[in-house]
Amino acid sequence: MSQQAVTPQSENFSEWYNDVVYKADLVSPSPVRGCLIIKPYGYEIWEGIRAGLDKRFKATGHQNAYFPLFIPESYLKREAEHVEGFSPELAVVTIAGGEVLQEPLVVRPTSETIIGEAFSQWIQSYRDLPLLINQWANVVRWEKRTRPFLRTSEFLWQEGHTAHATEAEAEAETLQMLDVYTDFAVNEAAIPVVKGQKSEIEKFAGALRTYTIEAMMGDKKALQSGTSHNLGQNFAKAFAIKYLSRENVEEFCWTTSWGLSTRMVGAIIMTHGDDKGLRLPPRLAPIQVVAIPIYKNDAERTPVLETVNRLVAELRGAGMRVHIDDREETPGFKFNDWEMRGVPVRLEVGPKDVQNNKAVLARRDMGKEGKQFISQDGILAQVTDLLNAIHDNMLAQATAFRKANTHDLTTYDDFKSLAEKGGWARVWWAGSNDDERKIKEETGATLRCFPLEQPEGSGTCFYTGQLANRVAIFSKAY
Amino acid sequence: MSQQAVTPQSENFSEWYNDVVYKADLVSPSPVRGCLIIKPYGYEIWEGIRAGLDKRFKATGHQNAYFPLFIPESYLKREAEHVEGFSPELAVVTIAGGEVLQEPLVVRPTSETIIGEAFSQWIQSYRDLPLLINQWANVVRWEKRTRPFLRTSEFLWQEGHTAHATEAEAEAETLQMLDVYTDFAVNEAAIPVVKGQKSEIEKFAGALRTYTIEAMMGDKKALQSGTSHNLGQNFAKAFAIKYLSRENVEEFCWTTSWGLSTRMVGAIIMTHGDDKGLRLPPRLAPIQVVAIPIYKNDAERTPVLETVNRLVAELRGAGMRVHIDDREETPGFKFNDWEMRGVPVRLEVGPKDVQNNKAVLARRDMGKEGKQFISQDGILAQVTDLLNAIHDNMLAQATAFRKANTHDLTTYDDFKSLAEKGGWARVWWAGSNDDERKIKEETGATLRCFPLEQPEGSGTCFYTGQLANRVAIFSKAY
Repeated sequence: MSQQAVTPQSENFSEWYNDVVYKADLVSPSPVRGCLIIKPYGYEIWEGIRAGLDKRFKATGHQNAYFPLFIPESYLKREAEHVEGFSPELAVVTIAGGEVLQEPLVVRPTSETIIGEAFSQWIQSYRDLPLLINQWANVVRWEKRTRPFLRTSEFLWQEGHTAHATEAEAEAETLQMLDVYTDFAVNEAAIPVVKGQKSEIEKFAGALRTYTIEAMMGDKKALQSGTSHNLGQNFAKAFAIKYLSRENVEEFCWTTSWGLSTRMVGAIIMTHGDDKGLRLPPRLAPIQVVAIPIYKNDAERTPVLETVNRLVAELRGAGMRVHIDDREETPGFKFNDWEMRGVPVRLEVGPKDVQNNKAVLARRDMGKEGKQFISQDGILAQVTDLLNAIHDNMLAQATAFRKANTHDLTTYDDFKSLAEKGGWARVWWAGSNDDERKIKEETGATLRCFPLEQPEGSGTCFYTGQLANRVAIFSKAY
Repeated sequence: MSQQAVTPQSENFSEWYNDVVYKADLVSPSPVRGCLIIKPYGYEIWEGIRAGLDKRFKATGHQNAYFPLFIPESYLKREAEHVEGFSPELAVVTIAGGEVLQEPLVVRPTSETIIGEAFSQWIQSYRDLPLLINQWANVVRWEKRTRPFLRTSEFLWQEGHTAHATEAEAEAETLQMLDVYTDFAVNEAAIPVVKGQKSEIEKFAGALRTYTIEAMMGDKKALQSGTSHNLGQNFAKAFAIKYLSRENVEEFCWTTSWGLSTRMVGAIIMTHGDDKGLRLPPRLAPIQVVAIPIYKNDAERTPVLETVNRLVAELRGAGMRVHIDDREETPGFKFNDWEMRGVPVRLEVGPKDVQNNKAVLARRDMGKEGKQFISQDGILAQVTDLLNAIHDNMLAQATAFRKANTHDLTTYDDFKSLAEKGGWARVWWAGSNDDERKIKEETGATLRCFPLEQPEGSGTCFYTGQLANRVAIFSKAY
């Protein structure tokens, strides 16, 4: 790992991001265009995300299953908007087992179609509903411009797929999963997301309504961090997902789908990172505490390491993820190294600490003012509290940053100048799809969402001057 | 789920297997040839396998990472034996993003090549060694004849890939991971595998030596359940995986790879299943205990359900996986249903049990003699002990079965008649590769492995009559 500094965020946020993902050892380039190797430290963050979500999915009654990677090309064509949305991005297998396939197979860009076909087999009557399935999988969407975690031709994700007897149940599921994503983002990733609904233009190809959680990155751009779709009866009709009701009538199901991907790793990096590198939220950090023994010679080394080992054993015993850095490098080198990798807490023990039954805890989320001298007694409770405090502080910092950079605007001129300097615009909106497209063309900002939390009453659309009954957030986005 | 019985094993083991995987709701057919949908109950078994292995990999110092699904076609060609072995089975992407690719991309059949390329970037000096990586992934090998879990065009697996400074370290790693697989198979899946080395013909394409764990299925055929390969310097030379030694000399690394797949689910089914359906080993069973309330009317229902809920809460509180079957079906229907699904323990509670502070425990691994009336007090300890006893009994049964059907043979005539009636032959072996092929052609039996545990001394080869210094196991296999 390099000890060179990263490009400052203020100088070039995009270069800062690239510096950090490589210097913190999260990814490695791959020889396949648009595909990335996720290295162990990056993959462990994803494992934490996966565990945090999986627990929540199971607690809300969902079960995991696994569906084929390949989808017959004809399946995608059954839902008109769906195929239009995904066709340009498909990777297609045309040869298998040494022979040209009669029907090409698409590498799944998402699995509504093949899961829809399965659901049509699995569901017979109302007794089979709701059907609540999730899949952890890789998907492929061929991308021209790629960025680590944010946009890659192959990525890892989960995709939930459910079927329901009524429209109301499907809508409730869609919103429930948006809440699950929000709970995860806030309480594990320390990211204060905004829940909202996508516009007609921005919704999922084939959905009735798409909901999203949007997060503000360190450069004030928005990142869509997870989406939940009410698919209405579109896929049910395309794939004949039907059930026999209590009244013995054949009905189409109402289906939903929802997904969150390795993009979330990018969201964590860009929400919390600073000019020293990564800052990882404690509940997802692969290493929560790095212990650094400090000594000048062998005589000091032995007692210091004994103390470090004892303290670390106590923390690990409670399930904490702790790493001891006993490399033959200077403490300064190690401090920089673990700051770059975003470890939330540094535990230092030197010879004097051994004598005085003390230790030092330093916080990644603060400067020198966050350094504290603690007693070795009860270290577990102290570190536990500190990790929670760090989580709360990171969440508070990100929330304050988002609030400071979200502006209620009333004129298009103000909007255009904000689009240049960066930030979210919260505006009354009554424009058409064409208006939305024009704004994107002129300013680069897109309609991120209509927040679920809306002000009372109505206002004047900042763009058309018409009466508007809801506000929208516009911003440049990843 | 159907209440019809499965085809008896003795009548047609292959039909029995197909009946069980569908009736126990493990899989569902897919529209893609050779690919299978793994339904929630089947996927949960895989999740248990994954958790059990992942824990062991991490405990032995391995880290997970993720590499691209697609491999440039030219990469496979760099190791001559490797490309020869895998070429006939490849699925090839020729079109992506609407354009014909300049170089086709192979969907990974295994990842030695692309990981080899990455290792050549990651490893500079002896300080970077050993490099111990594992990947959980889907792979594709286009198969003509497929069977659920045993042979499918796409399957899920883990593939470990490691690089070492010396041949001895690589060999030690290869054998360590074979031990990890064995420990998992014996202590989680209750499968008494035999550790051995593959013959030249049966080894992995590109390996120096391949080790295997072989299990005996209920029809006395063998199933290769996991393999560990010492790759020598073959891939290191093909991909320039080099390091600078302590002595500042550039050296090629020694690499290994090892894999275990969803085949293990098939091994579990065919090792333990019987004519009533699945029998799942308790430590991997998605449901360890099914609780069945027994009552005739609403007056009985309430106290019975109260008791069941209380007992189940106690078991779940200790992390046990317990399901309450409160469907409106007869107890008989439910008993059959959960026997088919292989749940190790059935907990019955009726009105009299409520009055007497009693309950009934029935074991899936035994008939009526395994039914016991217990006190509700201390149910957790009783069920915990019972699950361990069931594990031990299933392992003992499978071990006894394997021993009874493994025969030390000295003549080819005996061998041929065993190949017809089924079982493993343990024989002294000094034949050539061609002899091995001829035996396969004539009898259908293959050289499964040279067991690591060998008898002392030497003997006469049952086929060539020559002096042989090791014994081999031959058998028909999946």
